[in-house]
Amino acid sequence: MPRYCITVEYDGGDFVGWQRQDNGPSVQAALEQAASAIIGGRMAVAVQGAGRTDAGVHATGQAAHFDLPDAFDPDRLPLALNAHLPDTVRVLSARGVDDDFSARFDAIGRAYRYRIVTRRIAPALGRGLVWHVGQPLDHLAMTEAAQHLIGRHDFTSFRATHCQAQSPVRTLDTLRLEVEDDGLSLIAEARSFLHHQIRNITGTLVLVGRGKWTPLDVRDALAAQDRSAAGPTAPPQGLYLTRVDYPQD
Amino acid sequence: MPRYCITVEYDGGDFVGWQRQDNGPSVQAALEQAASAIIGGRMAVAVQGAGRTDAGVHATGQAAHFDLPDAFDPDRLPLALNAHLPDTVRVLSARGVDDDFSARFDAIGRAYRYRIVTRRIAPALGRGLVWHVGQPLDHLAMTEAAQHLIGRHDFTSFRATHCQAQSPVRTLDTLRLEVEDDGLSLIAEARSFLHHQIRNITGTLVLVGRGKWTPLDVRDALAAQDRSAAGPTAPPQGLYLTRVDYPQD
Repeated sequence: MPRYCITVEYDGGDFVGWQRQDNGPSVQAALEQAASAIIGGRMAVAVQGAGRTDAGVHATGQAAHFDLPDAFDPDRLPLALNAHLPDTVRVLSARGVDDDFSARFDAIGRAYRYRIVTRRIAPALGRGLVWHVGQPLDHLAMTEAAQHLIGRHDFTSFRATHCQAQSPVRTLDTLRLEVEDDGLSLIAEARSFLHHQIRNITGTLVLVGRGKWTPLDVRDALAAQDRSAAGPTAPPQGLYLTRVDYPQD
Repeated sequence: MPRYCITVEYDGGDFVGWQRQDNGPSVQAALEQAASAIIGGRMAVAVQGAGRTDAGVHATGQAAHFDLPDAFDPDRLPLALNAHLPDTVRVLSARGVDDDFSARFDAIGRAYRYRIVTRRIAPALGRGLVWHVGQPLDHLAMTEAAQHLIGRHDFTSFRATHCQAQSPVRTLDTLRLEVEDDGLSLIAEARSFLHHQIRNITGTLVLVGRGKWTPLDVRDALAAQDRSAAGPTAPPQGLYLTRVDYPQD
Protein backbone atom coordinates (compact mmCIF):
# COMPACT_ATOMS: atom_id res chain seq x y z
CA MET A 1 0.00 0.00 0.00
CA PRO A 2 1.32 3.50 -0.79
CA ARG A 3 2.70 5.35 2.24
CA TYR A 4 2.45 9.09 2.83
CA CYS A 5 4.18 11.50 5.18
CA ILE A 6 2.25 14.62 6.20
CA THR A 7 3.20 17.83 8.01
CA VAL A 8 0.57 18.84 10.56
CA GLU A 9 -0.23 22.01 12.52
CA TYR A 10 -2.53 21.89 15.55
CA ASP A 11 -3.79 23.79 18.55
CA GLY A 12 -3.17 21.39 21.41
CA GLY A 13 -5.62 23.15 23.72
CA ASP A 14 -8.59 21.03 22.66
CA PHE A 15 -6.80 17.67 22.79
CA VAL A 16 -5.61 15.14 25.37
CA GLY A 17 -2.37 15.17 23.37
CA TRP A 18 -1.08 13.67 20.14
CA GLN A 19 -1.59 10.07 21.20
CA ARG A 20 -4.87 8.16 20.96
CA GLN A 21 -6.35 7.76 24.46
CA ASP A 22 -9.60 6.67 26.03
CA ASN A 23 -10.14 9.87 28.03
CA GLY A 24 -10.72 12.39 25.25
CA PRO A 25 -10.00 13.58 21.71
CA SER A 26 -6.45 13.18 20.41
CA VAL A 27 -4.81 14.61 17.30
CA GLN A 28 -3.81 11.10 16.22
CA ALA A 29 -7.40 9.82 16.38
CA ALA A 30 -8.68 12.90 14.49
CA LEU A 31 -6.16 12.22 11.69
CA GLU A 32 -6.95 8.48 11.65
CA GLN A 33 -10.66 9.21 11.27
CA ALA A 34 -9.97 11.73 8.50
CA ALA A 35 -7.66 9.32 6.65
CA SER A 36 -10.28 6.60 6.83
CA ALA A 37 -13.00 9.05 5.70
CA ILE A 38 -11.16 10.04 2.49
CA ILE A 39 -11.13 6.40 1.38
CA GLY A 40 -14.85 6.11 2.08
CA GLY A 41 -14.32 4.31 5.38
CA ARG A 42 -13.19 1.15 3.54
CA MET A 43 -10.58 0.42 6.20
CA ALA A 44 -9.12 1.76 9.42
CA VAL A 45 -5.93 3.78 8.91
CA ALA A 46 -3.17 3.88 11.54
CA VAL A 47 -1.31 7.20 11.72
CA GLN A 48 2.10 7.31 13.41
CA GLY A 49 3.59 10.64 14.50
CA ALA A 50 7.19 11.74 14.97
CA GLY A 51 6.59 13.25 18.40
CA ARG A 52 4.00 12.36 21.03
CA THR A 53 3.15 15.86 22.22
CA ASP A 54 1.34 16.17 25.57
CA ALA A 55 -2.11 17.63 26.25
CA GLY A 56 -2.08 21.36 25.50
CA VAL A 57 1.18 21.28 23.51
CA HIS A 58 0.90 22.73 20.00
CA ALA A 59 2.57 21.89 16.70
CA THR A 60 3.37 23.90 13.61
CA GLY A 61 5.46 21.13 12.05
CA GLN A 62 4.51 17.71 13.41
CA ALA A 63 5.23 14.85 10.96
CA ALA A 64 3.24 11.63 10.64
CA HIS A 65 2.93 8.73 8.22
CA PHE A 66 0.17 6.33 7.18
CA ASP A 67 -0.76 3.91 4.40
CA LEU A 68 -3.68 4.20 1.99
CA PRO A 69 -5.04 1.26 -0.04
CA ASP A 70 -4.69 3.21 -3.33
CA ALA A 71 -2.42 5.98 -4.64
CA PHE A 72 -3.57 9.50 -3.79
CA ASP A 73 -2.26 12.74 -5.36
CA PRO A 74 -0.02 14.16 -2.56
CA ASP A 75 -0.92 17.70 -3.60
CA ARG A 76 -4.64 16.99 -3.04
CA LEU A 77 -4.15 15.00 0.17
CA PRO A 78 -3.98 17.99 2.60
CA LEU A 79 -7.26 19.48 1.36
CA ALA A 80 -8.97 16.08 1.38
CA LEU A 81 -7.90 15.37 4.97
CA ASN A 82 -8.64 18.92 6.18
CA ALA A 83 -12.23 18.57 4.96
CA HIS A 84 -12.67 15.84 7.61
CA LEU A 85 -10.69 17.49 10.44
CA PRO A 86 -11.71 20.00 13.13
CA ASP A 87 -10.36 23.50 12.38
CA THR A 88 -7.87 23.06 15.24
CA VAL A 89 -5.91 20.55 13.09
CA ARG A 90 -4.61 21.38 9.60
CA VAL A 91 -2.54 19.18 7.32
CA LEU A 92 -0.07 21.57 5.67
CA SER A 93 1.57 19.27 3.12
CA ALA A 94 1.99 15.67 2.09
CA ARG A 95 4.45 13.57 0.12
CA GLY A 96 4.76 9.96 -0.95
CA VAL A 97 7.43 8.00 0.93
CA ASP A 98 8.97 4.50 0.79
CA ASP A 99 7.04 1.53 2.18
CA ASP A 100 9.43 1.26 5.13
CA PHE A 101 9.51 4.98 6.03
CA SER A 102 8.72 5.77 9.67
CA ALA A 103 7.89 9.33 10.74
CA ARG A 104 9.01 8.38 14.23
CA PHE A 105 12.07 6.19 13.77
CA ASP A 106 13.56 7.83 10.67
CA ALA A 107 13.51 11.32 12.20
CA ILE A 108 17.06 12.62 12.74
CA GLY A 109 16.05 15.89 14.38
CA ARG A 110 13.22 17.57 16.22
CA ALA A 111 12.85 21.30 16.87
CA TYR A 112 10.66 22.90 19.52
CA ARG A 113 9.86 26.49 20.48
CA TYR A 114 8.68 27.51 23.94
CA ARG A 115 6.98 30.94 24.02
CA ILE A 116 7.04 33.02 27.21
CA VAL A 117 5.26 36.36 27.71
CA THR A 118 6.95 38.54 30.32
CA ARG A 119 4.78 41.67 30.29
CA ARG A 120 2.79 42.23 33.48
CA ILE A 121 -0.70 41.84 31.99
CA ALA A 122 -1.79 38.51 30.50
CA PRO A 123 -2.50 38.57 26.75
CA ALA A 124 -6.16 38.97 25.74
CA LEU A 125 -5.26 37.79 22.24
CA GLY A 126 -3.79 34.36 21.65
CA ARG A 127 -4.84 33.04 25.03
CA GLY A 128 -3.62 29.45 25.52
CA LEU A 129 -0.74 29.96 23.08
CA VAL A 130 1.96 31.16 25.52
CA TRP A 131 3.14 30.87 29.12
CA HIS A 132 2.41 34.19 30.81
CA VAL A 133 5.24 34.59 33.34
CA GLY A 134 4.26 38.22 33.95
CA GLN A 135 7.63 39.62 35.01
CA PRO A 136 10.90 40.59 33.30
CA LEU A 137 13.43 37.77 32.84
CA ASP A 138 17.21 38.14 32.71
CA HIS A 139 17.71 36.60 29.29
CA LEU A 140 21.51 36.93 29.44
CA ALA A 141 21.64 34.82 32.60
CA MET A 142 19.24 32.32 31.01
CA THR A 143 21.47 32.10 27.92
CA GLU A 144 24.50 31.51 30.15
CA ALA A 145 22.62 28.77 32.03
CA ALA A 146 21.57 27.13 28.77
CA GLN A 147 25.24 26.58 27.82
CA HIS A 148 25.52 24.01 30.64
CA LEU A 149 22.75 21.91 29.08
CA ILE A 150 23.91 21.89 25.45
CA GLY A 151 25.65 18.69 24.35
CA ARG A 152 25.48 15.04 25.39
CA HIS A 153 24.35 14.59 28.99
CA ASP A 154 22.41 12.36 31.36
CA PHE A 155 19.19 14.41 31.60
CA THR A 156 17.64 12.46 34.51
CA SER A 157 17.11 15.75 36.37
CA PHE A 158 15.01 17.07 33.48
CA ARG A 159 12.95 14.00 32.51
CA ALA A 160 9.48 13.22 33.82
CA THR A 161 9.64 10.63 36.59
CA HIS A 162 7.27 8.46 34.51
CA CYS A 163 9.35 8.85 31.31
CA GLN A 164 9.59 5.45 29.59
CA ALA A 165 12.76 6.02 27.53
CA GLN A 166 15.40 3.34 28.18
CA SER A 167 18.27 5.82 28.52
CA PRO A 168 18.28 9.29 30.16
CA VAL A 169 21.18 10.33 27.89
CA ARG A 170 20.37 12.76 25.09
CA THR A 171 22.37 15.17 22.94
CA LEU A 172 20.93 18.68 22.98
CA ASP A 173 22.19 20.32 19.78
CA THR A 174 20.56 23.73 20.25
CA LEU A 175 19.23 25.60 23.27
CA ARG A 176 18.98 29.32 22.64
CA LEU A 177 16.76 32.29 23.43
CA GLU A 178 15.07 34.69 21.03
CA VAL A 179 14.03 38.02 22.57
CA GLU A 180 10.62 39.19 21.34
CA ASP A 181 8.39 42.27 21.73
CA ASP A 182 6.45 40.98 24.72
CA GLY A 183 8.67 38.17 25.97
CA LEU A 184 11.04 35.53 24.67
CA SER A 185 11.17 32.13 23.03
CA LEU A 186 13.37 29.19 23.89
CA ILE A 187 14.49 27.15 20.86
CA ALA A 188 15.52 23.53 21.47
CA GLU A 189 16.80 21.04 18.88
CA ALA A 190 17.90 17.45 19.31
CA ARG A 191 17.63 14.07 17.60
CA SER A 192 15.06 13.18 20.27
CA PHE A 193 13.89 14.40 23.65
CA LEU A 194 12.90 12.80 26.95
CA HIS A 195 9.36 13.19 28.29
CA HIS A 196 8.86 16.75 29.65
CA GLN A 197 12.54 17.51 28.94
CA ILE A 198 11.91 20.91 27.31
CA ARG A 199 9.20 21.93 29.78
CA ASN A 200 11.46 21.01 32.71
CA ILE A 201 14.40 22.86 31.16
CA THR A 202 12.14 25.89 30.57
CA GLY A 203 10.81 25.88 34.13
CA THR A 204 14.39 25.73 35.42
CA LEU A 205 15.72 28.47 33.13
CA VAL A 206 12.86 30.74 34.21
CA LEU A 207 14.13 30.38 37.80
CA VAL A 208 17.43 31.75 36.50
CA GLY A 209 15.64 34.53 34.59
CA ARG A 210 13.85 35.56 37.78
CA GLY A 211 17.14 35.72 39.64
CA LYS A 212 16.20 32.89 42.01
CA TRP A 213 18.85 30.57 40.57
CA THR A 214 22.31 31.24 39.14
CA PRO A 215 23.51 29.65 35.89
CA LEU A 216 25.80 27.43 37.97
CA ASP A 217 22.78 26.12 39.88
CA VAL A 218 21.56 24.72 36.56
CA ARG A 219 24.90 22.96 35.99
CA ASP A 220 24.63 21.46 39.48
CA ALA A 221 21.02 20.39 38.92
CA LEU A 222 22.09 18.54 35.75
CA ALA A 223 24.98 16.87 37.58
CA ALA A 224 22.67 15.70 40.39
CA GLN A 225 20.88 13.26 38.01
CA ASP A 226 17.78 13.65 40.20
CA ARG A 227 14.48 15.14 39.02
CA SER A 228 13.93 16.88 42.35
CA ALA A 229 17.20 18.82 41.90
CA ALA A 230 15.86 20.79 38.90
CA GLY A 231 13.06 23.38 38.60
CA PRO A 232 9.33 22.95 38.00
CA THR A 233 7.67 21.79 34.77
CA ALA A 234 6.61 24.74 32.61
CA PRO A 235 2.93 24.59 31.52
CA PRO A 236 2.13 22.89 28.17
CA GLN A 237 0.50 25.80 26.32
CA GLY A 238 3.78 27.61 25.58
CA LEU A 239 5.33 24.64 23.75
CA TYR A 240 5.33 24.08 19.97
CA LEU A 241 6.76 21.19 17.94
CA THR A 242 8.00 23.25 14.99
CA ARG A 243 9.98 20.88 12.76
CA VAL A 244 10.97 17.26 12.23
CA ASP A 245 14.01 16.49 10.09
CA TYR A 246 14.62 13.44 7.90
CA PRO A 247 17.84 12.34 6.14
CA GLN A 248 16.37 12.89 2.67
CA ASP A 249 15.43 16.55 3.32
CA MET B 1 -14.43 63.37 40.07
CA PRO B 2 -10.97 62.09 39.01
CA ARG B 3 -10.79 60.98 35.37
CA TYR B 4 -8.66 58.12 34.06
CA CYS B 5 -7.54 57.05 30.61
CA ILE B 6 -6.84 53.37 30.06
CA THR B 7 -5.21 51.35 27.27
CA VAL B 8 -7.15 48.19 26.47
CA GLU B 9 -6.44 44.98 24.55
CA TYR B 10 -9.28 42.67 23.51
CA ASP B 11 -10.22 39.72 21.37
CA GLY B 12 -13.22 41.01 19.41
CA GLY B 13 -14.40 37.51 18.53
CA ASP B 14 -16.61 37.18 21.59
CA PHE B 15 -18.21 40.64 21.37
CA VAL B 16 -20.86 42.46 19.34
CA GLY B 17 -18.24 45.23 19.08
CA TRP B 18 -16.86 47.98 21.26
CA GLN B 19 -20.16 49.77 21.70
CA ARG B 20 -22.82 48.84 24.24
CA GLN B 21 -25.75 47.18 22.44
CA ASP B 22 -28.87 45.26 23.37
CA ASN B 23 -28.06 42.21 21.26
CA GLY B 24 -25.03 40.86 23.09
CA PRO B 25 -21.86 41.48 25.11
CA SER B 26 -19.80 44.55 24.24
CA VAL B 27 -16.31 45.55 25.36
CA GLN B 28 -17.67 48.89 26.58
CA ALA B 29 -20.27 47.22 28.82
CA ALA B 30 -17.68 44.78 30.20
CA LEU B 31 -15.43 47.72 31.15
CA GLU B 32 -18.34 49.70 32.62
CA GLN B 33 -19.31 46.74 34.80
CA ALA B 34 -15.69 46.26 35.91
CA ALA B 35 -15.26 49.98 36.71
CA SER B 36 -18.43 49.95 38.77
CA ALA B 37 -17.35 46.74 40.53
CA ILE B 38 -14.03 48.18 41.74
CA ILE B 39 -15.90 50.95 43.56
CA GLY B 40 -18.19 48.40 45.19
CA GLY B 41 -21.05 49.10 42.80
CA ARG B 42 -21.66 52.49 44.39
CA MET B 43 -22.48 54.07 41.06
CA ALA B 44 -22.70 53.32 37.36
CA VAL B 45 -19.56 54.29 35.42
CA ALA B 46 -19.71 55.42 31.79
CA VAL B 47 -16.68 54.41 29.71
CA GLN B 48 -16.02 56.24 26.43
CA GLY B 49 -13.64 54.75 23.88
CA ALA B 50 -11.50 56.35 21.19
CA GLY B 51 -12.65 54.01 18.43
CA ARG B 52 -15.93 52.13 18.08
CA THR B 53 -14.60 48.86 16.69
CA ASP B 54 -17.08 46.51 15.00
CA ALA B 55 -18.03 42.99 16.04
CA GLY B 56 -15.04 40.68 15.61
CA VAL B 57 -12.48 43.49 15.35
CA HIS B 58 -9.64 43.28 17.87
CA ALA B 59 -7.59 45.86 19.74
CA THR B 60 -4.10 45.87 21.18
CA GLY B 61 -4.17 49.60 21.96
CA GLN B 62 -7.73 50.90 22.33
CA ALA B 63 -7.99 53.98 24.59
CA ALA B 64 -10.94 54.87 26.83
CA HIS B 65 -11.73 57.26 29.66
CA PHE B 66 -14.06 57.24 32.67
CA ASP B 67 -14.56 58.98 36.02
CA LEU B 68 -14.34 57.41 39.46
CA PRO B 69 -15.85 58.99 42.60
CA ASP B 70 -12.50 58.79 44.44
CA ALA B 71 -8.84 58.84 43.47
CA PHE B 72 -7.40 55.45 42.51
CA ASP B 73 -3.70 54.60 42.15
CA PRO B 74 -3.25 54.43 38.32
CA ASP B 75 -0.65 51.71 38.70
CA ARG B 76 -3.14 49.47 40.54
CA LEU B 77 -6.10 50.29 38.28
CA PRO B 78 -5.33 47.75 35.51
CA LEU B 79 -5.09 44.81 37.93
CA ALA B 80 -8.23 45.92 39.78
CA LEU B 81 -10.25 46.18 36.55
CA ASN B 82 -8.83 42.96 35.09
CA ALA B 83 -10.03 41.06 38.16
CA HIS B 84 -13.60 41.88 37.04
CA LEU B 85 -13.15 41.38 33.28
CA PRO B 86 -13.41 38.27 31.09
CA ASP B 87 -9.96 37.04 29.98
CA THR B 88 -10.74 38.28 26.46
CA VAL B 89 -10.36 41.89 27.70
CA ARG B 90 -7.23 43.15 29.47
CA VAL B 91 -6.51 46.68 30.68
CA LEU B 92 -2.82 47.21 29.95
CA SER B 93 -2.20 50.57 31.63
CA ALA B 94 -3.93 53.58 33.16
CA ARG B 95 -3.13 57.21 33.88
CA GLY B 96 -4.87 60.15 35.49
CA VAL B 97 -6.07 62.81 33.02
CA ASP B 98 -7.70 66.26 33.18
CA ASP B 99 -11.41 66.56 33.96
CA ASP B 100 -12.17 67.59 30.39
CA PHE B 101 -10.07 64.92 28.66
CA SER B 102 -11.93 62.88 26.03
CA ALA B 103 -10.46 59.61 24.74
CA ARG B 104 -12.58 60.07 21.63
CA PHE B 105 -12.43 63.79 20.82
CA ASP B 106 -8.88 64.53 21.98
CA ALA B 107 -7.35 61.74 19.89
CA ILE B 108 -5.15 63.15 17.13
CA GLY B 109 -4.25 59.84 15.55
CA ARG B 110 -5.43 56.26 15.26
CA ALA B 111 -3.40 53.30 13.98
CA TYR B 112 -4.79 50.00 12.70
CA ARG B 113 -3.23 46.79 11.45
CA TYR B 114 -5.00 44.35 9.13
CA ARG B 115 -3.46 40.85 9.12
CA ILE B 116 -3.78 38.64 6.04
CA VAL B 117 -2.58 35.03 5.77
CA THR B 118 -1.77 34.03 2.20
CA ARG B 119 -0.59 30.44 2.62
CA ARG B 120 -2.90 27.86 1.08
CA ILE B 121 -3.94 26.10 4.30
CA ALA B 122 -5.91 27.98 6.98
CA PRO B 123 -4.06 28.45 10.29
CA ALA B 124 -4.92 25.93 13.03
CA LEU B 125 -3.33 28.26 15.59
CA GLY B 126 -4.69 31.76 16.14
CA ARG B 127 -8.00 31.03 14.42
CA GLY B 128 -10.18 34.17 14.29
CA LEU B 129 -7.14 36.45 14.46
CA VAL B 130 -6.43 36.86 10.71
CA TRP B 131 -8.14 36.89 7.31
CA HIS B 132 -7.12 33.70 5.51
CA VAL B 133 -6.96 34.71 1.84
CA GLY B 134 -5.25 31.43 0.94
CA GLN B 135 -3.35 32.52 -2.16
CA PRO B 136 -0.23 34.57 -2.92
CA LEU B 137 -0.76 38.33 -3.23
CA ASP B 138 1.30 40.73 -5.37
CA HIS B 139 2.40 43.04 -2.57
CA LEU B 140 4.26 45.38 -4.90
CA ALA B 141 1.09 46.06 -6.90
CA MET B 142 -0.83 46.52 -3.62
CA THR B 143 1.76 49.03 -2.41
CA GLU B 144 1.49 50.91 -5.70
CA ALA B 145 -2.31 50.98 -5.40
CA ALA B 146 -2.07 52.23 -1.81
CA GLN B 147 -0.26 55.38 -2.99
CA HIS B 148 -3.48 56.54 -4.68
CA LEU B 149 -5.32 56.45 -1.33
CA ILE B 150 -2.76 58.25 0.86
CA GLY B 151 -3.56 61.89 1.60
CA ARG B 152 -6.74 63.96 1.85
CA HIS B 153 -9.60 62.53 -0.23
CA ASP B 154 -13.35 62.05 -0.39
CA PHE B 155 -13.54 58.39 0.70
CA THR B 156 -17.23 57.87 -0.20
CA SER B 157 -16.24 54.79 -2.23
CA PHE B 158 -14.67 53.22 0.87
CA ARG B 159 -17.18 54.13 3.59
CA ALA B 160 -20.03 51.91 4.72
CA THR B 161 -23.31 53.02 3.17
CA HIS B 162 -24.72 53.38 6.72
CA CYS B 163 -21.70 55.45 7.94
CA GLN B 164 -22.96 58.34 10.05
CA ALA B 165 -19.97 60.70 9.72
CA GLN B 166 -20.98 64.16 8.43
CA SER B 167 -18.15 64.37 5.91
CA PRO B 168 -16.69 61.62 3.71
CA VAL B 169 -13.37 63.50 3.57
CA ARG B 170 -10.47 62.05 5.55
CA THR B 171 -6.70 62.37 5.48
CA LEU B 172 -4.96 59.01 5.32
CA ASP B 173 -1.45 59.62 6.68
CA THR B 174 -0.10 56.08 6.34
CA LEU B 175 -1.11 53.11 4.22
CA ARG B 176 1.68 50.58 3.86
CA LEU B 177 2.29 46.85 3.71
CA GLU B 178 4.51 44.69 5.90
CA VAL B 179 5.46 41.33 4.40
CA GLU B 180 5.40 38.51 6.97
CA ASP B 181 6.28 34.80 7.09
CA ASP B 182 2.83 33.53 6.21
CA GLY B 183 1.19 36.63 4.71
CA LEU B 184 1.20 40.38 5.10
CA SER B 185 -0.16 43.21 7.22
CA LEU B 186 -1.66 46.48 6.08
CA ILE B 187 -0.85 49.43 8.37
CA ALA B 188 -3.23 52.42 8.26
CA GLU B 189 -2.89 55.67 10.23
CA ALA B 190 -5.13 58.74 10.24
CA ARG B 191 -6.61 61.28 12.63
CA SER B 192 -9.90 59.42 12.22
CA PHE B 193 -11.50 56.86 9.90
CA LEU B 194 -14.90 56.38 8.31
CA HIS B 195 -16.99 53.33 9.16
CA HIS B 196 -15.54 50.23 7.42
CA GLN B 197 -12.94 52.41 5.71
CA ILE B 198 -9.97 50.15 6.43
CA ARG B 199 -11.88 46.92 5.76
CA ASN B 200 -13.14 48.32 2.43
CA ILE B 201 -9.64 49.50 1.49
CA THR B 202 -8.27 46.07 2.43
CA GLY B 203 -10.88 44.22 0.39
CA THR B 204 -10.06 46.43 -2.59
CA LEU B 205 -6.28 46.11 -2.28
CA VAL B 206 -6.64 42.32 -2.11
CA LEU B 207 -8.33 42.49 -5.54
CA VAL B 208 -5.13 44.17 -6.74
CA GLY B 209 -2.97 41.60 -4.97
CA ARG B 210 -4.87 38.82 -6.73
CA GLY B 211 -4.31 40.48 -10.11
CA LYS B 212 -8.03 41.10 -10.67
CA TRP B 213 -7.60 44.89 -10.43
CA THR B 214 -4.74 47.19 -11.44
CA PRO B 215 -3.45 49.95 -9.14
CA LEU B 216 -5.12 52.47 -11.49
CA ASP B 217 -8.48 50.76 -10.92
CA VAL B 218 -8.13 51.76 -7.26
CA ARG B 219 -7.50 55.38 -8.24
CA ASP B 220 -10.62 55.29 -10.41
CA ALA B 221 -12.69 53.68 -7.65
CA LEU B 222 -11.71 56.50 -5.28
CA ALA B 223 -12.57 59.15 -7.90
CA ALA B 224 -16.00 57.58 -8.51
CA GLN B 225 -17.17 58.60 -4.99
CA ASP B 226 -19.54 55.64 -5.06
CA ARG B 227 -19.36 52.67 -2.66
CA SER B 228 -20.28 50.21 -5.42
CA ALA B 229 -17.21 51.29 -7.40
CA ALA B 230 -14.77 49.84 -4.83
CA GLY B 231 -14.09 46.27 -3.71
CA PRO B 232 -15.73 44.13 -1.02
CA THR B 233 -15.47 44.64 2.75
CA ALA B 234 -12.73 42.49 4.25
CA PRO B 235 -13.90 40.36 7.22
CA PRO B 236 -13.54 41.84 10.73
CA GLN B 237 -11.26 39.25 12.33
CA GLY B 238 -8.09 40.49 10.59
CA LEU B 239 -8.41 44.04 11.93
CA TYR B 240 -6.66 45.42 15.05
CA LEU B 241 -6.85 48.90 16.59
CA THR B 242 -3.21 49.13 17.65
CA ARG B 243 -2.67 52.71 18.91
CA VAL B 244 -4.45 55.97 19.74
CA ASP B 245 -2.37 59.18 19.91
CA TYR B 246 -2.98 62.24 22.07
CA PRO B 247 -1.28 65.64 21.93
CA GLN B 248 0.39 65.21 25.32
CA ASP B 249 2.08 61.90 24.37
